Amino acid sequence: MNKLLIVGTVAFDAIETPFGKTDKILGGAGTFIGLSASHFNVNSAIVSVVGDDFPQEYLDLLTDRNIDISGIEIVKGGKTFFWSGKYHNDLNSRDTLITELNVLADFKPVVPADFTNSDVVMLGNLHPLVQSSVLDQMTEEPKLVVLDTMNFWMDCALPELLDVMKRVDVITINDEEARQLSGEYSLVKAAAKIQTMGPKYVVIKKGEHGALLFHNTDVFFAPALPLEEVFDPTGAGDTFAGGFAGFITQSENISFENMKNAIIQGSNLASFCVEKFGTERMVELTKEEVNERLKQFKSLTQFDIELH
Amino acid sequence: MNKLLIVGTVAFDAIETPFGKTDKILGGAGTFIGLSASHFNVNSAIVSVVGDDFPQEYLDLLTDRNIDISGIEIVKGGKTFFWSGKYHNDLNSRDTLITELNVLADFKPVVPADFTNSDVVMLGNLHPLVQSSVLDQMTEEPKLVVLDTMNFWMDCALPELLDVMKRVDVITINDEEARQLSGEYSLVKAAAKIQTMGPKYVVIKKGEHGALLFHNTDVFFAPALPLEEVFDPTGAGDTFAGGFAGFITQSENISFENMKNAIIQGSNLASFCVEKFGTERMVELTKEEVNERLKQFKSLTQFDIELH
Repeated sequence: MNKLLIVGTVAFDAIETPFGKTDKILGGAGTFIGLSASHFNVNSAIVSVVGDDFPQEYLDLLTDRNIDISGIEIVKGGKTFFWSGKYHNDLNSRDTLITELNVLADFKPVVPADFTNSDVVMLGNLHPLVQSSVLDQMTEEPKLVVLDTMNFWMDCALPELLDVMKRVDVITINDEEARQLSGEYSLVKAAAKIQTMGPKYVVIKKGEHGALLFHNTDVFFAPALPLEEVFDPTGAGDTFAGGFAGFITQSENISFENMKNAIIQGSNLASFCVEKFGTERMVELTKEEVNERLKQFKSLTQFDIELH
Repeated sequence: MNKLLIVGTVAFDAIETPFGKTDKILGGAGTFIGLSASHFNVNSAIVSVVGDDFPQEYLDLLTDRNIDISGIEIVKGGKTFFWSGKYHNDLNSRDTLITELNVLADFKPVVPADFTNSDVVMLGNLHPLVQSSVLDQMTEEPKLVVLDTMNFWMDCALPELLDVMKRVDVITINDEEARQLSGEYSLVKAAAKIQTMGPKYVVIKKGEHGALLFHNTDVFFAPALPLEEVFDPTGAGDTFAGGFAGFITQSENISFENMKNAIIQGSNLASFCVEKFGTERMVELTKEEVNERLKQFKSLTQFDIELH
């Protein structure tokens, strides 16, 4: 099996949506990426940090899915990263209520020796220096490096972000962030500009409006599945990225054509993530459900027009 | 050739976008629908009204495209409907600056005798009583009736709108209007509710985010083509509707599968409309350009994932 190295937060979230609220539950980009990628035949590891307040059952939940957690440092006497947010009525925007970095403040990622030769590296949303540090530890050049980031780092650590961007193949970013990073309103122009900054493939996530993949003059679009109800969007972007990276790792094919499939796999998995709070839906998700919904994606977008 | 009957405004527009502004130019839903539908092998007619201030060259432009204009009444001493609007920087919203109904205020549509047995009727955005009056004049039941409408009629003529909705097969409406009409935020739920109000097919237009087609439990999604620059969105929705209706009329096939193709054809034509002011791009558009861009639509959305 091919190796997928994931770096990202493993954390507590407390979420409020128009449909209800949770206490501290399992969250974090690394968690969502790992759970999503575990739907593919890959040998994956998460590099992260938690405090000793982090329940063993959450760690077991990852190891049960064959995710190597030897790279998740447990800081004695430390407290796990905690994020709390409240979504507005349309679920398209949210307010952060609490961010407690805790052990994340001094996080020095250590890649397990078995994974310094990973085929694919998925750099989840974290400080760009942490993302760079993971790449520094690779003993073989990965076939593909995928970077997820957000506006916070553009505001607070832009030079470091620009540095790590030069070292990656794919960037995943949302539409507003793509505009901020490029200074271009048109997403076509934004993607072209971002390609000059390092990543040869630019994935622009538009939430309920789907995702675009750009590479040179090629463009591919995957819709989000129209759902009766979006319950909690937390982790959808990470689940998308995890599905993308997981599928690419399994298939060993980094062509644009195969990335189309990876985008669909990511969108498919993300469509489940939003159906329940936090990781709840991803934890119970079966292979049959995933395959069934892939068929829906196909009928949602495929047409048979005659071209002349 | 099959017959397509179009009712809609033929008018003057004055448009301001971040890229410039126009004097009074050719506009109107009927105009955009007609120009778009003229890309298919159909026998089409527009029912509308103008004043005698309306230039002959604009009428010639329609007849040059084999559009029957005997149903466009020219009111002696009357002034043509005039709309003026200014788009905001993101082009997703606009302010109406001027609306002069003029001859439209007393418009009594008269369907030309040759078209009372039309195969398809496209009811462009107008007062629902005008739309109903056109249906009243049909001597044979059309194979398909498509209705376009907007929030203005939901606010000012809801009972009349609900009446005409019971008589149509397809409704095209934007996302906010679908929410307003149904009282449902989720577009899936909105489309289901609207289907109980008459139209068995619900097309929800999301502008730059594409369009959705709903029928029972079937859903199809067509993206908007990602463009470097959207210059002027005026008429894009009408051009979409005209492409949809024109293709359906030509192909004589009102199955859901064929409606998918019609949605793509409509999206394809609309992608040209927004590239220049008003009807400018549609007037110069060639068959070759249309076919070339259809290929782009195909590569934009088609993938070849293995299903198990």
